[in-house]
Amino acid sequence: MEGGKGVVKHIVLAKFKEGTTEEEIEKHIKSYADLLNHIEHMKSFEWGTDVSIENLHQGFTHIFEATFETLEGRSAYVAHPAHVKFGTALFPTLEKVIVIDYVPKA
Amino acid sequence: MEGGKGVVKHIVLAKFKEGTTEEEIEKHIKSYADLLNHIEHMKSFEWGTDVSIENLHQGFTHIFEATFETLEGRSAYVAHPAHVKFGTALFPTLEKVIVIDYVPKA
Repeated sequence: MEGGKGVVKHIVLAKFKEGTTEEEIEKHIKSYADLLNHIEHMKSFEWGTDVSIENLHQGFTHIFEATFETLEGRSAYVAHPAHVKFGTALFPTLEKVIVIDYVPKA
Repeated sequence: MEGGKGVVKHIVLAKFKEGTTEEEIEKHIKSYADLLNHIEHMKSFEWGTDVSIENLHQGFTHIFEATFETLEGRSAYVAHPAHVKFGTALFPTLEKVIVIDYVPKA
């Protein structure tokens, strides 16, 4: 598990629109991961698909987690042209999305 | 950051009902963290409140993340009496909740 230095977690839950192909989804995920190579503030990225068993996932199918060392780094990421370009391509393919950030406490 | 051994992430997003006091919320969070002491399958727990800046948090205010080493451990946690008791106390205080699990990939 990477991300050991991150102190800000940035979580995205997504449900793709019906008709979005597996190839398109895969392309978006690769683009998301590739942001690590373009935005220094982004310290780690991981993702997966829902495997929950409590039937409380509200239809969301994909989870993405990125970490940042500071809130300022997170904010710089949000405003970064590479992130804006990625988001502009991703958003039209989403039926719904939640983005939520937090500073983890034990 | 704890949780380095976890390979299953269990994410809960919550919004408490209006009128739920800070003391009640704090009590629930302590009970959630205390599950670590009662359910061996639960390997780590962390939480925080929304600090996102993209206005896509859909009203959710609290994030909880637990990790498990295996899907079977996650399932045992869900069914564990201590978890069921905790959930039974927590749920009536929630306006909305999402629970989603995933096996992280880089």
